[in-house]
Amino acid sequence: MFARIDHIGVAVADLEAAIALHELTFGMSVVHRETIGEQGVEAVLLDVGENHVELLRPLADDTPVGRFLAKRGPGLHHVAYQVADIDATLGRLREDGVRLIDATPRVGIRGSRVAFLHPSASGAVLTEIVEPATVHPS
Amino acid sequence: MFARIDHIGVAVADLEAAIALHELTFGMSVVHRETIGEQGVEAVLLDVGENHVELLRPLADDTPVGRFLAKRGPGLHHVAYQVADIDATLGRLREDGVRLIDATPRVGIRGSRVAFLHPSASGAVLTEIVEPATVHPS
Repeated sequence: MFARIDHIGVAVADLEAAIALHELTFGMSVVHRETIGEQGVEAVLLDVGENHVELLRPLADDTPVGRFLAKRGPGLHHVAYQVADIDATLGRLREDGVRLIDATPRVGIRGSRVAFLHPSASGAVLTEIVEPATVHPS
Repeated sequence: MFARIDHIGVAVADLEAAIALHELTFGMSVVHRETIGEQGVEAVLLDVGENHVELLRPLADDTPVGRFLAKRGPGLHHVAYQVADIDATLGRLREDGVRLIDATPRVGIRGSRVAFLHPSASGAVLTEIVEPATVHPS
């Protein structure tokens, strides 16, 4: 059902330092940068093969990523899996009784459609599913 | 330099429940199971496209994953990136002054060669590089 890892989400305090690390040390390329007001983050997407790293800088302390940073510090925040049809996937998860944060998809980074499962239903791992807006060549 | 996300590592307290979640709810398949005494874990590898999820159950409390579980509870533990030549990659990282946990590769899951970067050098994200033993078809 899940096609591949779409991205890992990393909470960062210093966005420019994190970009430099991923570009200069890890050899990745920034492919997108976007402020997502609804989620309270500035997000930077880097390519690594057909997968991505999503760096997340909170726009304020009183946001989900801001609270994560205050509690746990910078680090791995979530994993996102790519799905072909997010409506069908959410329907099946609902039928299976899986607890969801998003009962219906919302707009995510780069025009994708995304939804989060509740960590209590996904082994304490904040898990996102993503239907990309278009297929991005690797 | 990093070719793709090889896997995410997830620390789990209940390995069978985590396997059931990833197989039955997420639709992944277990492809490998191994006790890695050196790392103090029982590890289960699942396929998700050309990527993997590695579930890690500590063999004892006094192991890195056991201490992680005691401190933070179950959840995302590390990310691993695939590289074609781990010796060349480690050489370049050393030249760049990147702090490493493993100066030379050690044997990882499924006969791979792996090395960990120090979290202080990788944005507080425990980061592993992996040269697979063979290319596994997706």
